[in-house]
Amino acid sequence: MYPSSLEKLIESFKMLPGVGQKTAERYALHMLEQNVEKVDEFSKSMVDAHEKIKPCHVCHNFTEHDLCSICEDGTRDKSIICVVASAREVMAIEKMNQFHGVYHVLDGLISTQKGILPDDLNIDNLINRIDESVTEVILGLNATVEGEMTSLYLAKKLENKTTVTRLAFGLPIGGHLDYADDMTLMKAFEGRNKL
Amino acid sequence: MYPSSLEKLIESFKMLPGVGQKTAERYALHMLEQNVEKVDEFSKSMVDAHEKIKPCHVCHNFTEHDLCSICEDGTRDKSIICVVASAREVMAIEKMNQFHGVYHVLDGLISTQKGILPDDLNIDNLINRIDESVTEVILGLNATVEGEMTSLYLAKKLENKTTVTRLAFGLPIGGHLDYADDMTLMKAFEGRNKL
Repeated sequence: MYPSSLEKLIESFKMLPGVGQKTAERYALHMLEQNVEKVDEFSKSMVDAHEKIKPCHVCHNFTEHDLCSICEDGTRDKSIICVVASAREVMAIEKMNQFHGVYHVLDGLISTQKGILPDDLNIDNLINRIDESVTEVILGLNATVEGEMTSLYLAKKLENKTTVTRLAFGLPIGGHLDYADDMTLMKAFEGRNKL
Repeated sequence: MYPSSLEKLIESFKMLPGVGQKTAERYALHMLEQNVEKVDEFSKSMVDAHEKIKPCHVCHNFTEHDLCSICEDGTRDKSIICVVASAREVMAIEKMNQFHGVYHVLDGLISTQKGILPDDLNIDNLINRIDESVTEVILGLNATVEGEMTSLYLAKKLENKTTVTRLAFGLPIGGHLDYADDMTLMKAFEGRNKL
């Protein structure tokens, strides 16, 4: 129905997560209305980012160099390592602006369903990073079956090597108690604090 | 926070309609995970579509050639012209697969708010297209203030030249009467049909 080059662009946009036919059409038609410089810039930024971005040598966070900006930062506390599933979680935690340690990106989570085994993840490098200078490893993994499984595996692997902690479960701030699911409520009860 | 090439790609994605920081990040990170061929293809399809797609000489629908596929199609009924605001509406009507006439794309609607005047639109070409072979002009414009204003303007301009009709207003199919707004309900009453 559309001219072939437009059809192709729509197909390209459909590659993006959560983008179906309608949204892809909207994006593609929007691009046609832009001036040529903007389109070129967009097009180039895509190839450019894909070419330049690679995993940090130490922690597998995104970087354009050998080390990511966090590993390179002398002011960060290298005795505390926060373990996350992917580099996008690094960004989420950095936005909070409260954590001053360093990270370790696993590049995924153990999953029996998807057939992802510990060996497929960036776990060996984590274990090699742990020496006496590391005082705490914080497991910052999703509160899902896969996150739990990976947390348990890592806790086992790291016991006797350093202190392993994990993020608290409970009610989200601003969340209503009657909207919380049973598991969250249970965890909130288990983790109750003295006032 | 992100490496600069990634930051740039995120900014590019934010150019798309309805895409904010979070979605742009999601799209950009997704692109990093694709293989280089897919990224190149996406990148090229953008420049390519922008370069090749132009307005049809006759109706301003999208095309890669002089005439769009609809104007070029000998089986279409050229005596009925459906006037729409933009080429994306042509696609919407084509999907219905019930209209066998041809189109005329105005490239916008008259808007006092946005300062869009009749002269800014593809209206002169429409008037030049109307000869004795054209039996009906269907105004397929939005049911908004701008759509109404443009419809009235065109109806005036085309009177005595050909029959001008416009799409029916009323309840959307599957719509509940008690959810319809007053204007829609009023139009549905006005346009009631004998059973």
